[in-house]
Amino acid sequence: MAQKKQKSRHPSEPKVGIWIFGALGGLATTLVTGTRAAAKGLMPAQGLLTESPLCEGLDFPSLGSMVFGGHEVRRGKPRDAAVEIHERTGTIPYPLLDLLEEDYRAYGKEIRKGVLTNSGRTIRKMVGSDSTAKDDETLLEAVTRLQKEIKSFKRRNDLSTVLCVNLCSTEPKLKLTRTHQTREGLEKAIAKNQQSTVRPSTLYAYAAASLGLPFLNFTPSNGTLIPAIREIFEQEGAPYMGSDGKTGETLVKSALAPMFKYRNLKVLSWQGYNILGDRDGAVLNDAENKASKVESKDRLLHSILGYPLHTHVGIDYVPSLDDLKTAWDFIHFQGFLGVKMSLQFTWQGADAVLAAPLILDLVRFLELAQKRGEVGAQPQLASFFKSPLDCDEHDLHRQWHDLGRYLDGVRDDSPDK
Amino acid sequence: MAQKKQKSRHPSEPKVGIWIFGALGGLATTLVTGTRAAAKGLMPAQGLLTESPLCEGLDFPSLGSMVFGGHEVRRGKPRDAAVEIHERTGTIPYPLLDLLEEDYRAYGKEIRKGVLTNSGRTIRKMVGSDSTAKDDETLLEAVTRLQKEIKSFKRRNDLSTVLCVNLCSTEPKLKLTRTHQTREGLEKAIAKNQQSTVRPSTLYAYAAASLGLPFLNFTPSNGTLIPAIREIFEQEGAPYMGSDGKTGETLVKSALAPMFKYRNLKVLSWQGYNILGDRDGAVLNDAENKASKVESKDRLLHSILGYPLHTHVGIDYVPSLDDLKTAWDFIHFQGFLGVKMSLQFTWQGADAVLAAPLILDLVRFLELAQKRGEVGAQPQLASFFKSPLDCDEHDLHRQWHDLGRYLDGVRDDSPDK
Amino acid sequence: MAQKKQKSRHPSEPKVGIWIFGALGGLATTLVTGTRAAAKGLMPAQGLLTESPLCEGLDFPSLGSMVFGGHEVRRGKPRDAAVEIHERTGTIPYPLLDLLEEDYRAYGKEIRKGVLTNSGRTIRKMVGSDSTAKDDETLLEAVTRLQKEIKSFKRRNDLSTVLCVNLCSTEPKLKLTRTHQTREGLEKAIAKNQQSTVRPSTLYAYAAASLGLPFLNFTPSNGTLIPAIREIFEQEGAPYMGSDGKTGETLVKSALAPMFKYRNLKVLSWQGYNILGDRDGAVLNDAENKASKVESKDRLLHSILGYPLHTHVGIDYVPSLDDLKTAWDFIHFQGFLGVKMSLQFTWQGADAVLAAPLILDLVRFLELAQKRGEVGAQPQLASFFKSPLDCDEHDLHRQWHDLGRYLDGVRDDSPDK
Amino acid sequence: MAQKKQKSRHPSEPKVGIWIFGALGGLATTLVTGTRAAAKGLMPAQGLLTESPLCEGLDFPSLGSMVFGGHEVRRGKPRDAAVEIHERTGTIPYPLLDLLEEDYRAYGKEIRKGVLTNSGRTIRKMVGSDSTAKDDETLLEAVTRLQKEIKSFKRRNDLSTVLCVNLCSTEPKLKLTRTHQTREGLEKAIAKNQQSTVRPSTLYAYAAASLGLPFLNFTPSNGTLIPAIREIFEQEGAPYMGSDGKTGETLVKSALAPMFKYRNLKVLSWQGYNILGDRDGAVLNDAENKASKVESKDRLLHSILGYPLHTHVGIDYVPSLDDLKTAWDFIHFQGFLGVKMSLQFTWQGADAVLAAPLILDLVRFLELAQKRGEVGAQPQLASFFKSPLDCDEHDLHRQWHDLGRYLDGVRDDSPDK
Repeated sequence: MAQKKQKSRHPSEPKVGIWIFGALGGLATTLVTGTRAAAKGLMPAQGLLTESPLCEGLDFPSLGSMVFGGHEVRRGKPRDAAVEIHERTGTIPYPLLDLLEEDYRAYGKEIRKGVLTNSGRTIRKMVGSDSTAKDDETLLEAVTRLQKEIKSFKRRNDLSTVLCVNLCSTEPKLKLTRTHQTREGLEKAIAKNQQSTVRPSTLYAYAAASLGLPFLNFTPSNGTLIPAIREIFEQEGAPYMGSDGKTGETLVKSALAPMFKYRNLKVLSWQGYNILGDRDGAVLNDAENKASKVESKDRLLHSILGYPLHTHVGIDYVPSLDDLKTAWDFIHFQGFLGVKMSLQFTWQGADAVLAAPLILDLVRFLELAQKRGEVGAQPQLASFFKSPLDCDEHDLHRQWHDLGRYLDGVRDDSPDK
Repeated sequence: MAQKKQKSRHPSEPKVGIWIFGALGGLATTLVTGTRAAAKGLMPAQGLLTESPLCEGLDFPSLGSMVFGGHEVRRGKPRDAAVEIHERTGTIPYPLLDLLEEDYRAYGKEIRKGVLTNSGRTIRKMVGSDSTAKDDETLLEAVTRLQKEIKSFKRRNDLSTVLCVNLCSTEPKLKLTRTHQTREGLEKAIAKNQQSTVRPSTLYAYAAASLGLPFLNFTPSNGTLIPAIREIFEQEGAPYMGSDGKTGETLVKSALAPMFKYRNLKVLSWQGYNILGDRDGAVLNDAENKASKVESKDRLLHSILGYPLHTHVGIDYVPSLDDLKTAWDFIHFQGFLGVKMSLQFTWQGADAVLAAPLILDLVRFLELAQKRGEVGAQPQLASFFKSPLDCDEHDLHRQWHDLGRYLDGVRDDSPDK
Repeated sequence: MAQKKQKSRHPSEPKVGIWIFGALGGLATTLVTGTRAAAKGLMPAQGLLTESPLCEGLDFPSLGSMVFGGHEVRRGKPRDAAVEIHERTGTIPYPLLDLLEEDYRAYGKEIRKGVLTNSGRTIRKMVGSDSTAKDDETLLEAVTRLQKEIKSFKRRNDLSTVLCVNLCSTEPKLKLTRTHQTREGLEKAIAKNQQSTVRPSTLYAYAAASLGLPFLNFTPSNGTLIPAIREIFEQEGAPYMGSDGKTGETLVKSALAPMFKYRNLKVLSWQGYNILGDRDGAVLNDAENKASKVESKDRLLHSILGYPLHTHVGIDYVPSLDDLKTAWDFIHFQGFLGVKMSLQFTWQGADAVLAAPLILDLVRFLELAQKRGEVGAQPQLASFFKSPLDCDEHDLHRQWHDLGRYLDGVRDDSPDK
Repeated sequence: MAQKKQKSRHPSEPKVGIWIFGALGGLATTLVTGTRAAAKGLMPAQGLLTESPLCEGLDFPSLGSMVFGGHEVRRGKPRDAAVEIHERTGTIPYPLLDLLEEDYRAYGKEIRKGVLTNSGRTIRKMVGSDSTAKDDETLLEAVTRLQKEIKSFKRRNDLSTVLCVNLCSTEPKLKLTRTHQTREGLEKAIAKNQQSTVRPSTLYAYAAASLGLPFLNFTPSNGTLIPAIREIFEQEGAPYMGSDGKTGETLVKSALAPMFKYRNLKVLSWQGYNILGDRDGAVLNDAENKASKVESKDRLLHSILGYPLHTHVGIDYVPSLDDLKTAWDFIHFQGFLGVKMSLQFTWQGADAVLAAPLILDLVRFLELAQKRGEVGAQPQLASFFKSPLDCDEHDLHRQWHDLGRYLDGVRDDSPDK
């Protein structure tokens, strides 16, 4: 079905860096495992749009050309993280644990100490006392170190570019003030070491922005792509996009909701319940952290349908499920003669497995944007996000066609056409 | 939400006729009830696309301008049919039974004797021995009578046009031969009274086509819009469309399937089970009649996804459900790292309630086509059908955008623009 | 299937009174409607255990012998309440609204003003400003009035007994202190008019207990059958039972959970989500009132399975559903070789329709207990409750067999044996 | 939770043989894997009733005392079969493949050539041309060989007894005649080599019966425990039980159906759809083989509820699911005021994982029966079967309590009491 792309790297192909904030999380581990496995021909690259007919004729970095590194606050080794995933959900097949031993080791060497500044009680508790984060660093020392480590990664690996990806746990909502509106305000706060002004992802995004590197916010954390950071990306000339990867229940919602509009069936209520375990579930079990997520998931129905309706999005922690997220949605709607009817669905997906290929697609699309000199938010990538920046379109189908049109434009611009 | 249209008829507005083959069935009864209730302001016109923002600025016949009549093989009165529906499913609210008493009586006066020629054992059995069909009529006598009765309906009610709609039970598949390929062949068979050559819906469609009236095949019966009939529509200059209204499980399928393509998730299996009661369920319980239906429901996944996959469509008769059709679909798909995941949904809809507004939309769109001088199949209406004629597009979203583009064209053509 | 009992009253049969606290609620209205419809032969008495083979040979009051009355804080008429139910959910068939007109009127005449003492903000708000409750009554005046009105109901209707039933909205949890432990303490508080010491259901239960009348607490409200009240029932020689009717999701839970024990499958997690509208849903939407309910629903799994497990019970307000409660439960369990598997169910029931026959069963069983001279809690009725008094058994099957054994004992005791 | 039993064998404990017909099937492979893993302390013995509180104080063979062997028609090695299961469903954890290498080898050495006599086209096709079955053997030669091989297994391994278990694929229904009614009739047919008179499982059961060995029919095949075979078991003094292990959808049915009786809710329709892959699914995809299964699954509802109702049991082959059977049941029921409501459930279980511990329980219970001198069918084991022999009870709860009572009797009989 999918068009065959070159997965392994040709000797002449430049290498690109993928720098992951949250480098030992389940998603990062799944991402690195799957990419290396596909690059070595051990697994198909299923789940990647950039390997599908939509992207035919476009030139993206091969999976084999990608070099991974990142920041992380927990101690540990990539292969151990992969073993844990294998044992808990089986989504990483056992044989890969050995076949990728060298790849895990190489990745582990590129992981640096993360930051935990003002990350909130739940993330702190989950990380535990044995964190790698240096609590005595000032904000300025922290960002300087982060920048240095990313630059060193690029240089040491001879990379054509580095694409930065935020895969950290969802942070508690950051209260945004005037300080966050401008580069000047933010840099002052950093200089004054005003720790309560930032979240870890603010510092990570700052590091990427100030280095002019493309950036992807795959989380709903609102402290990441604040106006000040966006201003820096514009000034330094880098593309970025966010927020919150659309992988499961919200994906189905955005595919299904238009159907009711096509039939002029009035949606009365749309109740959604998500249950999941693992670190993601544990963090979202905290009401503070959950708030960011629910808001991101709940917005789109009104937008697609065009009228207010009763909605609910629940997220509950069920440890036994680990990463195998299950969601039940109940949709109550009304038709001709006022008759009420219903549709319900149960989604059972492995969250990291669904998310990892989107990240590969997104870094490829950001790399493309960068090569084309595009700067700032990239709304043509809206279909990948629950809360797409600078885009009011939530209908999955329209989002997809928007991306298709963008890619047609890319093809038209290409010299060999 | 929905734009307010005029439901009741302005005295100067011309009246249009809706001629229903299967005039006392559950769908016909629901259609007439809901239309009259909305025309009288007793019920909102929910479920009609022609009452939604998509159709803003277009001029359709008001619901109050529609006059109903039809052919039917069972004896009975419209109000009794409505009472039966109220008692079995409650989808027709009790108060309407009295408030529409006069409307039911008027409709009853416009119902004529149907035909049962070669309709198969199950339909015969369901109709019983007390059918209105005249078994001693020759095919020629039958079509002549049908034509006469429709013309008389138009004249007597002073109608600007008559739109014909096939709502009969799904017929056993008709084996198509050379006879069915041309007007000449079919008319010879009629002249020779070759009864096994036709199904009832062949005769109904012939009557409509030969009178040059727009025609809608809402059933999957393959004996309706055969090449010979389509040739006659072309020659007599009338638009038509079919086949098989997309109301429930298939609707959801065509809305959801593209999502898997947008994420390059490989669908391994898509199993669908439909359970329903009432006459529709009883007829489909016969393997011969079911065959037409299953084929119509099963085609679209391969078309949307672009690769072969394991599919199954089950239809089982569950008398206690009556018209409250329930469907369970299980979708097994594979993503990154080869991980298998699933989505399942349960659809609970009242079939006639879902179908009736589509018919109103379709007769309005056919009336529009007729006014614009459009002749033949109308593929811009594909979103309404499981097996749209002359159209390979099964993706609900693309179908909807195709319709939108067509309507934009209509608006561009309109004189007052 | 069900054994045919006499539904209508024989002239020589004594009449029994059913006094309902919450007399115009959806459940009371459904109860009175269904009982009168069955007594008049308009509807079968489906859903009553006392009409099933289990109760063969036992002598219960006929449905026709039951006379209804009650207390209520909202203004209104029974027939209007029934019309509202018909319009919202259709569970009361339209024809009954007319056929039972006289019955509704008779019931309306037996409804007296309720009490709202310390009922909490949500119930107050729902009742609105136009309540029938007399806010200037002291507690002593209130209970004296309640007693008088129930006695007058009995005398006026020539009833052999009156069975009292609490069907009020779930109250916020009452903080129990020493005052609630003894009759003396409670009566002192009433005498001193300490309003914060009681809830409305405390006063209702007090009235029944002090009159020595059998009592049924169908709600989870913890202020109803407090130790002081239970002491009074013992002293006045009346049977009673509670709490919280087991009608839907919890019923299924208590039927299914033993299965996992029978197979030694380890239940890891049992998540339950209930969604419902109507007054019940609105009241439970208040966290204070919900607390009583969730506790009642969540207790039984540990008890049946014999080990602690991860459970969750959610209740959310979905207005469009009205009384058509929907529940989704997801059960995650582990078997041989440590493999995790799942069972999920969706329950769609009309809450009042499920509850009403249980109340008829329970008043019949309480009337039987009273005739047999049984006093105090009646744990043989545990199968009807989420939180059965004086009973640790939550396994539905054991509860049912316990009831069967009790009834066998009754049969053995009966003189004509 | 579960009481800790000795899993490994004490040197003084006698060894018992488990002889499996269908020795390389998914179920046999899972059974041997899990038993050896638990015996070695690598896995808990979850899913075994004989390891639960119900069986406290009873003396069963330890898992470590069990020695496995069997007959098989397909070529192959146990470890390869286990690898295949790991790769397809992950239900056998990867590490066991190495840790049990020696155990798999030992088991492989005890596998002998099976028989394929009259097994039907689908089983033949699945086995392929490379079967181990000797097509030129007469029936008499076959049973003589089977007997010899089982006796040799017992002698060579110094076993106290051998328990025989039929785990072959479901066979097409055998038409039973007078020949199958008596030992004499059957032995004549064998002597005359009337191959169409028997299925493979007839020959296997004959071998076990004629050797006086306990026998377990875990399949629905009707040619296994025919009257002639049962006569031989009686004469040779061995206990046996069947048929068709109750592992999934039917288990849930038999746990849930009584609930409707307890509430006198009338079940109108109970539709069940099973989808599964692997060899089991492939064999049941043949209408001939499916017939045996559906009959076994469909019987119990009428029996539990006490009245006829509309039921349906579907089984469809969905290769991508392998052994991860999924079932959807829709239950339509009617209550008070004639209101229709519904319950639906989705069961997702790994069939072999659910079945394997039942087989361990059953061989332990049969060994107990044998030691106690019990001969013939063992209806106290009804809870394990879809079609329990000599038992009309299908209510899971009653079946379980019957087993409990039997075990209480065993305890009462035991000398040290």
